[in-house]
Amino acid sequence: MKEKNTYTHHISQQFNTELDDIKTRMLEMGGLVEKQVADATNAFMQLDTGLAEEVRKGDALVNALEVSIDEDCTIILARRQPAASDLRLVLSISKILSDLERMGDEASKVADSAIKLTELGGLPRSVLEIRHIGDHVAGMVRGSLDAFARLDIDLALEVAEEDKAVDLEYGTAMRSLVTYMIEDPRTISSVLQVMWALRSLERVGDHARNIAEHVIYLVKGANVRHVNIEEMAATVQDQS
Amino acid sequence: MKEKNTYTHHISQQFNTELDDIKTRMLEMGGLVEKQVADATNAFMQLDTGLAEEVRKGDALVNALEVSIDEDCTIILARRQPAASDLRLVLSISKILSDLERMGDEASKVADSAIKLTELGGLPRSVLEIRHIGDHVAGMVRGSLDAFARLDIDLALEVAEEDKAVDLEYGTAMRSLVTYMIEDPRTISSVLQVMWALRSLERVGDHARNIAEHVIYLVKGANVRHVNIEEMAATVQDQS
Repeated sequence: MKEKNTYTHHISQQFNTELDDIKTRMLEMGGLVEKQVADATNAFMQLDTGLAEEVRKGDALVNALEVSIDEDCTIILARRQPAASDLRLVLSISKILSDLERMGDEASKVADSAIKLTELGGLPRSVLEIRHIGDHVAGMVRGSLDAFARLDIDLALEVAEEDKAVDLEYGTAMRSLVTYMIEDPRTISSVLQVMWALRSLERVGDHARNIAEHVIYLVKGANVRHVNIEEMAATVQDQS
Repeated sequence: MKEKNTYTHHISQQFNTELDDIKTRMLEMGGLVEKQVADATNAFMQLDTGLAEEVRKGDALVNALEVSIDEDCTIILARRQPAASDLRLVLSISKILSDLERMGDEASKVADSAIKLTELGGLPRSVLEIRHIGDHVAGMVRGSLDAFARLDIDLALEVAEEDKAVDLEYGTAMRSLVTYMIEDPRTISSVLQVMWALRSLERVGDHARNIAEHVIYLVKGANVRHVNIEEMAATVQDQS
């Protein structure tokens, strides 16, 4: 009997190591995506086409990581057939990977817009909105990953709340850009690049919110997709 | 021994019924999403705010279906611990659900733009690009779901090829809209609504391509995400 226990213990330790491994790799991928978002924002603000090119190239690594870590998730599901919270963990990681990959796509689109804007000769006025929203959503990406790493649902709720703030900032920025275009139609093509970049950054915020929702699902077992912030807060505060 | 076989057979039949059930429900959800895309396109073309409102309301059902079918996927993984191709099937369905849900979001955004464009008084010229690309991507949605239903990887490959055509059409349409804006800056606000709608439709095409990739993964066991069409075609044609 003792031997069997040791054996089971051994298997379960291996399993834990495998789970830790995909968690760590996913968080590393998340760190890379956060950097891609920050770099894309900087490339845009400074019209730095070299940095923008790096972001575009970096997206291939993000994509490769998604495929590789997701394959590991499938292998774990097939071999270990995890139940309950372990199953939820693997499924959540698989879904978070997909959000991270899409954030990487958006960062790459911001880099595209930076290059096009540079070709168009830049803008006659500064685009502080990009800096502001870019920093905001990069912070949300970090927050959502920290929330995952520490299973911190209060932080996850904060990230979801930030997304509402970003949406408002985005709306204000877009209206001001439309006014700017109308006042000086010669800037139409360049202002459109700012709009595309803003829209991509706003989407990064949406994906960070998705990750926050996965964290709440992981901890509470409750699906908080498509519910409003008040319902989400009630789920987070529910002690049961 | 006979009894045990009967029992195993019984369990396995139940399992097959469960798998068929999530497949059927996912395809029904797909049919609804295809209708949402077609309705949103029609609402935009005809400035039909009543239909646009219906699309917006319909998105809640799309979201609810995603959550409900995905929960069923998790339950199957936990209870049945499927292996090999059954595992791939359940995981693919879970991922396709997420693409369908995001298509639904995009249809809803097209409906938003239809309402805003109507408020702005419509456009002085027709926007055939929306009709054209809207029909094109709705066809891709149908194609990707048919490919899934019949496990038809040749059709899946066709859908992925269509996505390249849509991207080209999208680029041409956007350039023509920019020219239109520059020539008549009074139309800026309305043309922006056309651009947002086009961008959403183009994304629907991206998600249909994702579904096609999941079908190829399901049949071939090979991951064709982030590969170009030539590599994808080679995978589909590979007889091994």
